[in-house]
Amino acid sequence: MGENQGLSGLSGGAGSCSPPATTHLPHAVLAIDIGGTHFRVALFDPQGRQLVISEGETLRSGGREWMLDEILKRTLALLGEARSTAATCGISFGGPVDFRQQKVTSVHSPGWENFSFAQWVDVNLHLPCLIDNDANAGALGEFRFGAGRGTEAMVYVTLSTGIGAGVILNGKIHRGKDGLAGELGHIPISEAGNTCSCGAVGCLESFSSGWAIAERGREWRRLRGDSLAALGDSSRSRSEGITAREIAQAASQGDPADLEIMRAAARTLARGLLTVIRLLNPDRIILGGGLIQAGAVLLDPLRESLTKLASPTIGYSTEIVTAELGEYSPLYGAAAMALELTAGLP
Amino acid sequence: MGENQGLSGLSGGAGSCSPPATTHLPHAVLAIDIGGTHFRVALFDPQGRQLVISEGETLRSGGREWMLDEILKRTLALLGEARSTAATCGISFGGPVDFRQQKVTSVHSPGWENFSFAQWVDVNLHLPCLIDNDANAGALGEFRFGAGRGTEAMVYVTLSTGIGAGVILNGKIHRGKDGLAGELGHIPISEAGNTCSCGAVGCLESFSSGWAIAERGREWRRLRGDSLAALGDSSRSRSEGITAREIAQAASQGDPADLEIMRAAARTLARGLLTVIRLLNPDRIILGGGLIQAGAVLLDPLRESLTKLASPTIGYSTEIVTAELGEYSPLYGAAAMALELTAGLP
Repeated sequence: MGENQGLSGLSGGAGSCSPPATTHLPHAVLAIDIGGTHFRVALFDPQGRQLVISEGETLRSGGREWMLDEILKRTLALLGEARSTAATCGISFGGPVDFRQQKVTSVHSPGWENFSFAQWVDVNLHLPCLIDNDANAGALGEFRFGAGRGTEAMVYVTLSTGIGAGVILNGKIHRGKDGLAGELGHIPISEAGNTCSCGAVGCLESFSSGWAIAERGREWRRLRGDSLAALGDSSRSRSEGITAREIAQAASQGDPADLEIMRAAARTLARGLLTVIRLLNPDRIILGGGLIQAGAVLLDPLRESLTKLASPTIGYSTEIVTAELGEYSPLYGAAAMALELTAGLP
Repeated sequence: MGENQGLSGLSGGAGSCSPPATTHLPHAVLAIDIGGTHFRVALFDPQGRQLVISEGETLRSGGREWMLDEILKRTLALLGEARSTAATCGISFGGPVDFRQQKVTSVHSPGWENFSFAQWVDVNLHLPCLIDNDANAGALGEFRFGAGRGTEAMVYVTLSTGIGAGVILNGKIHRGKDGLAGELGHIPISEAGNTCSCGAVGCLESFSSGWAIAERGREWRRLRGDSLAALGDSSRSRSEGITAREIAQAASQGDPADLEIMRAAARTLARGLLTVIRLLNPDRIILGGGLIQAGAVLLDPLRESLTKLASPTIGYSTEIVTAELGEYSPLYGAAAMALELTAGLP
């Protein structure tokens, strides 16, 4: 950071002997966050302050082409709005990314598999670009600009439809041999259980993620529906589309079954977090992702379970906190990646 | 390393203008490994080659004073035998160590609690000294001189009476906020189970360690003894002192109950190792400690369980191997610590 050569080539209109007459802010960077439900495009200044942002809901049926179109349109609109140019770009992608090859490797979202996203940005926006998955991006966002400031070792846990983690050690993302470090959702927390989205059995994600909570809620409603149907009621169909958010809301309003569903998810999650503490003993664990919005019905039993699990002889001072940047941690991480890139500009 | 000032002050007898006339090897370092059953004192050359060694069985009833006496005696004998001097000292201790304060913090071994071991070495042997626990020392030993050579990230797992791990990331021991990283034995692998030595419930150590295996063996023999007693046999008393080593031997000879005890321990251990892979995805996991001598009755079901646990969509290339230095990994780690210290000598 701190040099403006990277920008000058893109700003245009400036004479070579006098400072540019335009009013745009120097050194802006482009940050993109693509999630399963939302996407965001924003410009940040070199201090990591958000200048302008454009957000939308992800149209899953639109696939890759729709998304790329939206990004292009909104980026150009933002640059116009801010009367700015961008020097670099960072992307947080809500799915598997091969960081070394800078490729999306998601097989669940049609059209994204093996997509060289950074190269697309280079060709279409003429910007150097770095892409990473949302767990690593979220970790970086909190580390640089949120609840992870001042730590050396921290783990950002994203609790959403799935569960992931970004591990920062000695101030850098630890990626592992295959780039798979931080797969907290797929630690074998139990010997048995439902089959996980990954195809294995006993993964933390199959107990404590958004989809697991929704699945438990549906199961319970089916059972209850069957009982009611036997009594002439036909409420069974209402359960089919239920989401983790709705279950958390019902729990917050005191529904005993949904409270117990949230409690069970929290109990298993507590074992997952204690596992992180035992292996890495980080300065801080930062909880992010949409599921955190469930609030007390998740976080209270989580803390209770951690207290119950504690060993009387092996204490720890690792703090467990919620993300300071809320659902924007990955976007700020994308900005942090873009800012790292500006340091390497000629 | 590579400078001999640290040594010259200790060698004595050398004139200031001519090379020393003694035959001792330059740059030797002292390595000490204190375990619950064995202890070792050895001299190593700067390349980490063992020059001379003295080994004995730990007399638990002798306590700290007996052990320190043995170390002093044997060190002086080794130095005489090798006609050498030592520049520095490294210690591997089979129990909790506060690395920052260079103190033993073990509460299980009377007399060792809060003992400033490095300071004792300074006063009694006049050597700069570093001490660490045996899991970290074993990790360092394998990393520098054994199966971990060439890796950047590796985890050494010591399977013994208890279970511990030393985590090396970016070529350095990762200790964590409270120095408690690598407490693999105390990850909450199960929601229920026997109470662990740490006082918590569900720890990996209470399923897969030497003491857990011995405990299962005793339980089984008590049950069998009770059945036999009902038939007029009195073999029950034979079970009381049985060890994990004897159970592994019986399993190797085909005893079905002991085979199942080893298999159950291996199954849970496999979940512990996969947890390490999911979170850290290291280049290599290296299995050490006395329990490894059980061989196929432990390692075969361990590999089978890892295959069964595999996710069809999340592969990994982390290798799982046994320690190249066998039960000497911690001693070599102590040598590595001592060699690191020589680099800092004036």
